[in-house]
Amino acid sequence: MRTQVAIVGAGPAGLLLSHLLSLRGVESVVVENRSRAYVEARIRAGVLEQDTVDLLIDSGLGDRLKSVGLRHDGVHLQWPGERHRIDFRALTGRSVWVYGQTEVVKDLLAVRGDAVHFEVSETTLHDLETEPSVSFVDADGRRQVVEAEFVVGADGFHGVSRPNVPNLRTWERDYPYGWLGILAEVPPSTDELIYAWHPRGFAMHSMRSPSLSRLYLQVDRDEDVADWSDDRIWTELSTRLALDGWTLRTGPIVDKGITPMRSFVSAPMRHGRLFLVGDAAHIVPPTGAKGLNLAVADVALLSRALIAFFAEGRTDLMDTYGDRALRRVWRCTHFSWWMTSMLHVTGDDMDRELQLSQLRYVCSSPAAATSLAENYVGLPHEL
Amino acid sequence: MRTQVAIVGAGPAGLLLSHLLSLRGVESVVVENRSRAYVEARIRAGVLEQDTVDLLIDSGLGDRLKSVGLRHDGVHLQWPGERHRIDFRALTGRSVWVYGQTEVVKDLLAVRGDAVHFEVSETTLHDLETEPSVSFVDADGRRQVVEAEFVVGADGFHGVSRPNVPNLRTWERDYPYGWLGILAEVPPSTDELIYAWHPRGFAMHSMRSPSLSRLYLQVDRDEDVADWSDDRIWTELSTRLALDGWTLRTGPIVDKGITPMRSFVSAPMRHGRLFLVGDAAHIVPPTGAKGLNLAVADVALLSRALIAFFAEGRTDLMDTYGDRALRRVWRCTHFSWWMTSMLHVTGDDMDRELQLSQLRYVCSSPAAATSLAENYVGLPHEL
Repeated sequence: MRTQVAIVGAGPAGLLLSHLLSLRGVESVVVENRSRAYVEARIRAGVLEQDTVDLLIDSGLGDRLKSVGLRHDGVHLQWPGERHRIDFRALTGRSVWVYGQTEVVKDLLAVRGDAVHFEVSETTLHDLETEPSVSFVDADGRRQVVEAEFVVGADGFHGVSRPNVPNLRTWERDYPYGWLGILAEVPPSTDELIYAWHPRGFAMHSMRSPSLSRLYLQVDRDEDVADWSDDRIWTELSTRLALDGWTLRTGPIVDKGITPMRSFVSAPMRHGRLFLVGDAAHIVPPTGAKGLNLAVADVALLSRALIAFFAEGRTDLMDTYGDRALRRVWRCTHFSWWMTSMLHVTGDDMDRELQLSQLRYVCSSPAAATSLAENYVGLPHEL
Repeated sequence: MRTQVAIVGAGPAGLLLSHLLSLRGVESVVVENRSRAYVEARIRAGVLEQDTVDLLIDSGLGDRLKSVGLRHDGVHLQWPGERHRIDFRALTGRSVWVYGQTEVVKDLLAVRGDAVHFEVSETTLHDLETEPSVSFVDADGRRQVVEAEFVVGADGFHGVSRPNVPNLRTWERDYPYGWLGILAEVPPSTDELIYAWHPRGFAMHSMRSPSLSRLYLQVDRDEDVADWSDDRIWTELSTRLALDGWTLRTGPIVDKGITPMRSFVSAPMRHGRLFLVGDAAHIVPPTGAKGLNLAVADVALLSRALIAFFAEGRTDLMDTYGDRALRRVWRCTHFSWWMTSMLHVTGDDMDRELQLSQLRYVCSSPAAATSLAENYVGLPHEL
């Protein structure tokens, strides 16, 4: 088969790109090795930047987002004995939205599901410098080839696309801890997210809806989730999130998993007629909620570049895509590393006192609070 | 002999305390193991915060400072190919002053020299919880004792005072590099300080007067100054500070030395009738110029506390001195660590990209620039 843009990966980045292109009459085909049910159910990020929300709404995907998404005008930073609010609205005039990546994917599949080949295997990219194509074995076992003018790798950190870029440069940082995340059927005990520093480790209270809480605990990166009973998790969360006059509501845990933390950047983000977007090119640790938003920013830049090419024959936006995307990637990589380093307990007593001093400063200096806030609500797609 | 406050150490902290006390009629005696010539000649810090300057002027020490001190309304941050100015005045309404610690000490000795016993030895503190005294052998070899109501340790990191505090808690961080600093008889090639990140290591261009330049190079902490010829120093400075259209002027090097970098905090800052100020209690690396200013802030708090005691019998300011001083100590310790970590090359390529991303952000976000600026010009003595 033949299309204009072949997209590898039906996560939020690949689907959004396909959607934005289709709105401007550019055809695309998406191949995905997982099933539709898996893609729709996997639980990932949950905080959208204002620009991400605006892009979704402007592209006609705002109905459910506007009705069930929760606008958050700030977050809480906490350490033992103190909880402070960072007021995004007052500091930057902007907000974030709590609306699960799962929901974004559902909205995208509602409009682009037909363009996706699910449960493919043996996906391979060909002739990326001349006449590119993507071959795969479809769900029915038939070998297929998509010929396209461009291929976009939106297939995540472990995807097949990135290895096709020759002379790839990579930067990587592992962290000695991970996040034990739970989804619990209990109304959130807070109206806005709580990021808590505690001598026993970082804890976070987030939510997915008025009846569904999402909470995280810093654990060793090699920890076995089987060692964490529901009781142990709630006890640890209650300890680390404790504050006088505030109580953590507990409830049935319906999902439980440990995520490692990694910072990863690769460059270039283009090779010939292949472009990389999102996790295929870079990974941030989840502190600060940049991963999904960064993928959306890549897609915003790349969709404009591809549309300009197909509509006007312009190549300048494609030629500068990588450099422009990487500027923002490094900003978000730094911010995510900074948030992570400030909040996770590791190292010695000196590190802890430096973290506490940083937290106190962020919560007392309008300039420092604004700096956190403007990164959190999202810097412009073009930096 | 008997006095109200016995001060150990005739550096800027001890001398300023003696001066501020004398203005309010509180007697003090200062003991110093170095000679007056040594104390007046040693080259140390050179950047004064606005509050430090105000305190010196308000206490009658402003004549030379106002005539030869240089007001700086900003600094330059640089990395290869780019130099950006952080405009302190525009961002905070405040400035810093270039006026050497050596000059501050001369001004202080002009008014308090008679209160100092120079070249003492065997300085020992006694009965700090009851009726304190300081014994020493004076320059003529006579054993003397100063009985006082309070003793103040202003005798620096290696001084005898701090070990008198029982159950002292300490926090420490060593850095794998030091500063090779030179004083050169050449007009500065810049009107304001330049902090330069470079893949070969940090470099800095400072000054002491319109005819005297002070420059620094990041070197390994174990480097031997003998390995650094004047030629090698100027070549390295020219490389690291290079910018198109700008030339580094060179000249005779009249002083050369390597300073290790250390962050150190100890608590409590009081034991019975002993108080610690300045380097006796804490050390910061020189990046950001906090060391002297932090000592002055300690002295500002302690002088007020001692004056309130002698004038009105109040003990509340003395009782809270340690906690109030430590809040500011940790803020400056964090800021100095942050400036140091952002500008000194160490670690891997990921660290370098994170540093560059941080530098670009500080130079492009008014919030981030204000955050640097407000710390640099100095947060209030009482945080």
